[in-house]
Amino acid sequence: MEADFSGIKAAVFDLDGTVNYGDKIIPGAKETIDFLRSKGIRILFATNNSGKTRQFLTDKLHRLGIECDVEDVYNSGYVAVRLVEEKGLRNTYVVGSNSFKEELSKVTNLVDEDHADTLVVGIDTRFDYERMTAALRAALRSETIIFCNEDVSYIGEGERIFPGAGAMTGFITNCSGKRPDYIVGKPNTPMFDLISKNTGIPCSEMVMIGDSYRSDVGFARNAGAKCILIGEERDDVVCVPTVRDIQGLMWTH
Amino acid sequence: MEADFSGIKAAVFDLDGTVNYGDKIIPGAKETIDFLRSKGIRILFATNNSGKTRQFLTDKLHRLGIECDVEDVYNSGYVAVRLVEEKGLRNTYVVGSNSFKEELSKVTNLVDEDHADTLVVGIDTRFDYERMTAALRAALRSETIIFCNEDVSYIGEGERIFPGAGAMTGFITNCSGKRPDYIVGKPNTPMFDLISKNTGIPCSEMVMIGDSYRSDVGFARNAGAKCILIGEERDDVVCVPTVRDIQGLMWTH
Repeated sequence: MEADFSGIKAAVFDLDGTVNYGDKIIPGAKETIDFLRSKGIRILFATNNSGKTRQFLTDKLHRLGIECDVEDVYNSGYVAVRLVEEKGLRNTYVVGSNSFKEELSKVTNLVDEDHADTLVVGIDTRFDYERMTAALRAALRSETIIFCNEDVSYIGEGERIFPGAGAMTGFITNCSGKRPDYIVGKPNTPMFDLISKNTGIPCSEMVMIGDSYRSDVGFARNAGAKCILIGEERDDVVCVPTVRDIQGLMWTH
Repeated sequence: MEADFSGIKAAVFDLDGTVNYGDKIIPGAKETIDFLRSKGIRILFATNNSGKTRQFLTDKLHRLGIECDVEDVYNSGYVAVRLVEEKGLRNTYVVGSNSFKEELSKVTNLVDEDHADTLVVGIDTRFDYERMTAALRAALRSETIIFCNEDVSYIGEGERIFPGAGAMTGFITNCSGKRPDYIVGKPNTPMFDLISKNTGIPCSEMVMIGDSYRSDVGFARNAGAKCILIGEERDDVVCVPTVRDIQGLMWTH
């Protein structure tokens, strides 16, 4: 598909599979980011990872050799926290990591399953039958349910498959029969809306760069942004074999 | 709905919610079973519980004061074991209780997730992220997938809601995208077929007695058996308020 990236003011990079693969940087990612910055393009990062804080992800990018400010890094957990704050949601039961719970505790009252009015669900690698039971009960009584994202799996350590937040959210919808009121992660738009609001750049002047057709391309389309898909060939979207190829693609025009 | 139970040779009782409530017998259950036996009706038990063995369930019934032989007690775990044996399935990864794994180990080779050709999924109250990860990987490579049942929840201790085997099976279908080749529990027919085969009584000459419209009534209908629903009012099935009322219902004819 033909590419037209005139008027683009910002590039939003997915992380896992685009910039890094676990703790390793993907060859060409840093150079591409530096190149785009030299052309006056603002660089942002958007990941569905809700298990880590923005600060953790920022520190990780620094370790990988990529310069960025914490304000440039967006994850679904952060967007969930902002949503809970904005809506003034109280009495929240959380399925998620300890750091996610800590971030949420700054904007809402964390409660047990028998006192929940709000349920927030992200990835929880310590999810077990006890937590499933509590989460089910919290889901049944909650007035508001927020999912970080519905990614059922991801490729992690050792390039092996792991269950994603979608394992926890799928459990909630299957066992409680309730659907979420909000899904804040990609491919839904709340994360893009927040990036646009905070940067003052309209979505139409941003390009999303990622390796997932469903998550990244869907995200850009739903928000009205441009997009580039890495490592896959699709007829209906601009594709490049590797992250390195973005440089030539965006500056042949 | 009008009842006609002439020609009935056997009554198949659901357990939880029909005969017992956790460790307590439901008033009238023993008397009803004794009454039906005095009329020459054979008594059998059918439960979706895959976490316990037939022997465990039989011992429990004895403790509740109900006479029965282990051969009269059917659970979805037992039906799964018989199916694995009958089909000659090998290299099996199991999601389930230790006793279920032990029963399966008598008829198949239990393996880890990287060597599975068959996946069998029952309730596992020790399901956690590590087991989820292994189960997902086993699901992706298995040629044959067997679910014990898809009951998403049940009412247990303290009359509170708990996740059922459907939490584990829902995880498999959601995260792997694969559906089972066999579902052996109610409302599917394999359990009724096995009861009929072992007793020599056709399904049409049996009545299923239970408290779940979906599970018990569906089970009877799918197998071509009669049924009585306890504790619920439905237009399309014979209903009684309590298990005690079955006596009058079946012998006013």
